[in-house]
Amino acid sequence: MKRLIPLVAILAATTLFLASGAHADETEANPSPWMGTVERAPAGVTAPAGLSGFSPDSIESELQLEARAAAMIRPDSLRRHSRILTEEPHVAGTPADYATAQYVQQRLASYGWDAQIVAIPVWLNWPKSALVELLEPEPMKLAVREKGIAGDKDSHDANAFDAFNGYAASGDVTGGVVYANYGDVADFQALRNLGIELKGRIALVRYGQVFRGLKVRNAEKAGLAGVIIYSDPADDGYAQNDMYPRGPARPEDAIQRGSVQFLSEGPGDPTTPGWASATNAKRLPASEAKGVPHIPSIPMSYGEATKILIALGGPLAPKGWQGALPFTYHVGPGAAKVHLKVEQDYAVRPIWNVIATLKGREHPEQKVVLGNHRDAWTYGAIDPNSGTICMLEMGRTLGALAKTGWRPRRTIQLSSWDGEEYGLLGSTEWAEGNAADMSAHAVAYVNVDAAVSGHDLRVSASHALRDLMAESIRDVRDPGSNRSLWNTVIDRAWSEGKTAWSQANRARRGRNEPPRAFEWNVSSLGSGSDYTAFVDHLGVPSMDLGFGGLHGTYHSMYDDFDYIDRVIDPGFGYHAAMTDLMGRVMMRLADAPLVPLRYSTTGQFAFDEMQSLEDRADDAGAGKPDSLRFTASLGAARAAAGKLRNAALVLERHADAALLGSEPWPAGGIEAVNGAIISAERALLGPGLPGREWFRHELYAPGLNTGYAAVPLPRLGQAVLDNDPRAWANGIAPIIQALERAAGELERVK
Amino acid sequence: MKRLIPLVAILAATTLFLASGAHADETEANPSPWMGTVERAPAGVTAPAGLSGFSPDSIESELQLEARAAAMIRPDSLRRHSRILTEEPHVAGTPADYATAQYVQQRLASYGWDAQIVAIPVWLNWPKSALVELLEPEPMKLAVREKGIAGDKDSHDANAFDAFNGYAASGDVTGGVVYANYGDVADFQALRNLGIELKGRIALVRYGQVFRGLKVRNAEKAGLAGVIIYSDPADDGYAQNDMYPRGPARPEDAIQRGSVQFLSEGPGDPTTPGWASATNAKRLPASEAKGVPHIPSIPMSYGEATKILIALGGPLAPKGWQGALPFTYHVGPGAAKVHLKVEQDYAVRPIWNVIATLKGREHPEQKVVLGNHRDAWTYGAIDPNSGTICMLEMGRTLGALAKTGWRPRRTIQLSSWDGEEYGLLGSTEWAEGNAADMSAHAVAYVNVDAAVSGHDLRVSASHALRDLMAESIRDVRDPGSNRSLWNTVIDRAWSEGKTAWSQANRARRGRNEPPRAFEWNVSSLGSGSDYTAFVDHLGVPSMDLGFGGLHGTYHSMYDDFDYIDRVIDPGFGYHAAMTDLMGRVMMRLADAPLVPLRYSTTGQFAFDEMQSLEDRADDAGAGKPDSLRFTASLGAARAAAGKLRNAALVLERHADAALLGSEPWPAGGIEAVNGAIISAERALLGPGLPGREWFRHELYAPGLNTGYAAVPLPRLGQAVLDNDPRAWANGIAPIIQALERAAGELERVK
Repeated sequence: MKRLIPLVAILAATTLFLASGAHADETEANPSPWMGTVERAPAGVTAPAGLSGFSPDSIESELQLEARAAAMIRPDSLRRHSRILTEEPHVAGTPADYATAQYVQQRLASYGWDAQIVAIPVWLNWPKSALVELLEPEPMKLAVREKGIAGDKDSHDANAFDAFNGYAASGDVTGGVVYANYGDVADFQALRNLGIELKGRIALVRYGQVFRGLKVRNAEKAGLAGVIIYSDPADDGYAQNDMYPRGPARPEDAIQRGSVQFLSEGPGDPTTPGWASATNAKRLPASEAKGVPHIPSIPMSYGEATKILIALGGPLAPKGWQGALPFTYHVGPGAAKVHLKVEQDYAVRPIWNVIATLKGREHPEQKVVLGNHRDAWTYGAIDPNSGTICMLEMGRTLGALAKTGWRPRRTIQLSSWDGEEYGLLGSTEWAEGNAADMSAHAVAYVNVDAAVSGHDLRVSASHALRDLMAESIRDVRDPGSNRSLWNTVIDRAWSEGKTAWSQANRARRGRNEPPRAFEWNVSSLGSGSDYTAFVDHLGVPSMDLGFGGLHGTYHSMYDDFDYIDRVIDPGFGYHAAMTDLMGRVMMRLADAPLVPLRYSTTGQFAFDEMQSLEDRADDAGAGKPDSLRFTASLGAARAAAGKLRNAALVLERHADAALLGSEPWPAGGIEAVNGAIISAERALLGPGLPGREWFRHELYAPGLNTGYAAVPLPRLGQAVLDNDPRAWANGIAPIIQALERAAGELERVK
Repeated sequence: MKRLIPLVAILAATTLFLASGAHADETEANPSPWMGTVERAPAGVTAPAGLSGFSPDSIESELQLEARAAAMIRPDSLRRHSRILTEEPHVAGTPADYATAQYVQQRLASYGWDAQIVAIPVWLNWPKSALVELLEPEPMKLAVREKGIAGDKDSHDANAFDAFNGYAASGDVTGGVVYANYGDVADFQALRNLGIELKGRIALVRYGQVFRGLKVRNAEKAGLAGVIIYSDPADDGYAQNDMYPRGPARPEDAIQRGSVQFLSEGPGDPTTPGWASATNAKRLPASEAKGVPHIPSIPMSYGEATKILIALGGPLAPKGWQGALPFTYHVGPGAAKVHLKVEQDYAVRPIWNVIATLKGREHPEQKVVLGNHRDAWTYGAIDPNSGTICMLEMGRTLGALAKTGWRPRRTIQLSSWDGEEYGLLGSTEWAEGNAADMSAHAVAYVNVDAAVSGHDLRVSASHALRDLMAESIRDVRDPGSNRSLWNTVIDRAWSEGKTAWSQANRARRGRNEPPRAFEWNVSSLGSGSDYTAFVDHLGVPSMDLGFGGLHGTYHSMYDDFDYIDRVIDPGFGYHAAMTDLMGRVMMRLADAPLVPLRYSTTGQFAFDEMQSLEDRADDAGAGKPDSLRFTASLGAARAAAGKLRNAALVLERHADAALLGSEPWPAGGIEAVNGAIISAERALLGPGLPGREWFRHELYAPGLNTGYAAVPLPRLGQAVLDNDPRAWANGIAPIIQALERAAGELERVK
């Protein structure tokens, strides 16, 4: 269910990257209409040299091995997987879903993997009936199904469910309508400020900004009786690009289905919160299910929503609320009266993860896990099966290498998760059930949800993975430019972040500090896909990869084979590039003698984020009385971040020297170093965030009121968002403790 | 022809204002849907105390006099003037225009003013014929006239001209169409970057961002054959507010007429550039007219433009080019083929300024000038006659005071300018003809164009007038809130500028400088109305006043009495408030013993602007090679700005003490001080800006490529906009000289 997450970020950090120009081509300015002109990054921002974790004399053989794998990747094989996996709608738990599990298991087994289907019982809903009608000013039924598009046979399929929301409540409500913009907390507050009565009314909210479940949560808290969530063409429709089939944007009748779980409070089966959903596991009664709404909701196309929206009266919609429909938006109520009746069919049903392993030759207990979900709201051609086909293709190439005698140093696990769309069910329940093993032995988790929804590489990750990512991107060709993908990524990052970078340097000049070189960095992980349990609950360093872009058919009947084959990736070149990238990342994580995680980057990230948070806290408190200002200092927390960075730098330099052979390994050898590195991210777990203890990472979490988007250093970041100086003050000590624990893990190897 | 100019600005300057809370009410947060929530300004930002230029014992009598004038202001009188002045369309030079001149002259004469009609011969066009038709894909004629709106009889009037542009070229062209966004220099460059052939094609550009004449200039330079300028609903239509008659936004068929002179290169009669257009004056032949286009152009409604735009093919419109019409914009060409044929009737014709004076009792030679234009593209109910009715009403109240024996210390001149819409003709030619007198004796120029197009006070001014403005705003009631207008203005300024203010303070903290208190300031003057010749050519301290808001009927047939009476200012309360504000400003300028101009504010403004310019220059040069970076230091220029500020502070403190009676006046007495103050702005004139020597002010000018918007410190500001480090380096010396000349004027009084 992955969705528009903040993209490539900029970090003005220490200049680890500036040593070598080996792989950086000279590049021309690249005009990209919807991005504005992409400007060339400044000279000196060159790709990293070397391969983290490998000794200089083993780099060449590793690159040759990777090249053999890459040479086996076949676009026609990717396309065939896509056609087969997307033949039928395959919502979690349905027979069609089981058929995809069988396909994935059989393919991986045939490639030489030890592949098993693992059934998990979960409580979830399928739709029984859905009705939305306008009673006034003109009675009319509103569509709960797409019409289909000429030339795309799948989009006419009658087998799909009508529009519904995962974990929606059943309900039958009638009332006046208010338009509540994106439905975030501030939007409902703005309506109250305008004097609009909310109680008992039906909220019409648009998709975007915050996870849809939080829109329903916010409406429920504000006293509304029901929610209609529609896709405004401002956000993923004609205001962004041509509509499918001419382009990738959302057609007039396309409905975004999706879960309305309160994702930021905790994913997974709502009746087994915090523990694995096994056959005999304790299970809360449905009435006590955690984090699901009690008021009914339904998704809608803009073509249908227009009929309601245009009939609203009341005050003008506030600044920023106007969408791209051709009239002036009002907040309501007014003439529109709506009847919403939805019935859900809830039951405990099996869903099916597929778990496949290739056993490690030296450290079979150490695991490098790749995951992608398989279930879809309709056909899932992009979300998620563009990732599934890359995983299968990578499974084929690694399997082929294994058949010729290669084995990775550590165990590789491929995971085809089920039930992700409802609330990351398959991955969360699996992670909860395998917590001890993962805590002890997981090296990293690599997530691929929608692998290709456009042509812009997006990387979110634990910051310790930054160097590995940069080196891997460097070695993959961009099928668009036929240059190194690194050039595309770095130029885009420069163009997007230029101002932030120069402002940071101005501030540094003011403090008489030397300017910082521009540098690429990964974005922080939020939520919305299967990495969540790994990074936030278990402290496994994680990443999320994909080529992004406008995916206007998201969760609609048009997310089908024709859309991907004709519009998004004709020729499947970007899928091939993603397969290559995933393969290199997995092989390096699994094969590098030294685990390629660098916590100096994590420490620097925390340090810089604290500076940025202090600035934002200053702004939030500007002109306010002292009681509303963020006065507690982050000095000690910055020192703890510096301590982690420095401890990591010492260990990294020592280990690099040992790899070179110029210094001996510390006591305990490389195994002791790897042990410390593997422990470092786990040490960043704390007692759990306030009010949502399942989230334990002290550096990363989704925003409590965003769901998808990351709020780094969540105790502090959330405090600023909530204008809560007390939460800020209370949040400092746990962060210091976590950073010092992680530094201690690294310092214990001498 | 005044148009959306950057509004109230923030200056984090010295804290002149923080002394007194006398007039600042406690205010509640004021939810204003289209502004976002307006937050209360921090405690301590109180209205200024006192009356600049008056001795403490004369303040009370001055305020009583002003209150007598204010008590005479009558909304019904304002409304009657409006109904009469807007009875017929009155384009410059037409008989209907002459009738309005007679009305204004007769009214002012009847109020006791010495009022004269002064004819000026100018070269200008009226339309002879206008035709735009789509030849392909479907042949159809496109409307060049509004349809009229039920219940608004004026909007159906057949006497108005068809749509045309002032100073348009005649022409007959046929071609494919390209969409060029706002038609600025960068927009045409972006089309070239996309590989779009421009030569011989017709540009479809939307209104907004830059003055329309520069759109045509840019198209002409880029090789296009003709230009159609339309009003996108994103900018002043339904995306902003409800359409007239439900609200103030532009209806589907409303056409924005207007001049296509190259305003930023020099206003006034294009055949008498730089000298007064008198009866026997030298006049260039039409073929050599300066600053007018050679390719034909026409304005269009969005209803008609849609028919062209929707037929365009080619690449997607770049990011930011998409308007609010309900389809995806492409840049063209494509299926659309357009035939544009416009014929202009050019001649030298008389236009008529009305000049009215009330002679000063002590310094009849010193002049305080108020001006407002009278000519309109159609009825001009808002633009400009909302200002005309305020001027007439103020003329009535001051005339009534004069009839009871009052006389101002200095001469007050009211000016009803003609031909402003074509290119500031009446004011520019008058200023050029009266340059010597103005240079010697003008105290200030007060401009009122569209006095009321909404409810948000907008003040642009020479910075020396800031304190006078703050004190005047303080003493006027806001008819919306019935509080002091100061509260409305300051809360809005705080809410809009908060972030800039806190960022500036963060930078100051980094430099170990003390934080600055938030403070209100005036915006810099750009161009687009009749203050231009006064401030930019003659160096007369100027201001431009108006209650602003979305004026969607701007320059269309719907800018009529019904629009103002029903939508914009029912009851004419804001007109009454503006009359009060203008009256107080004029009375204080004309009556204060000490001329109420403070150049310490000007010096501080220049100082802060240089800091901001250096930051922007840093950003513009970020990551570029040295030859493209702005390396020349502004250190000496900042020192010169500091010198002006300090010289002014010394003189202002001395004069204030003398007004109090606690110190003697300097040699030459108050007259010498006033003489120095009157000379200071003139000392800021230099040799003329590069390529447009008519613009002589070293601190203020319109942007060369914007037309309306100000580019303060224009040599430096334009250099940053143009990415021209050499112009930057060359621009420093003239600014230093101007600032030192002004400081010298103030220092010579001891």
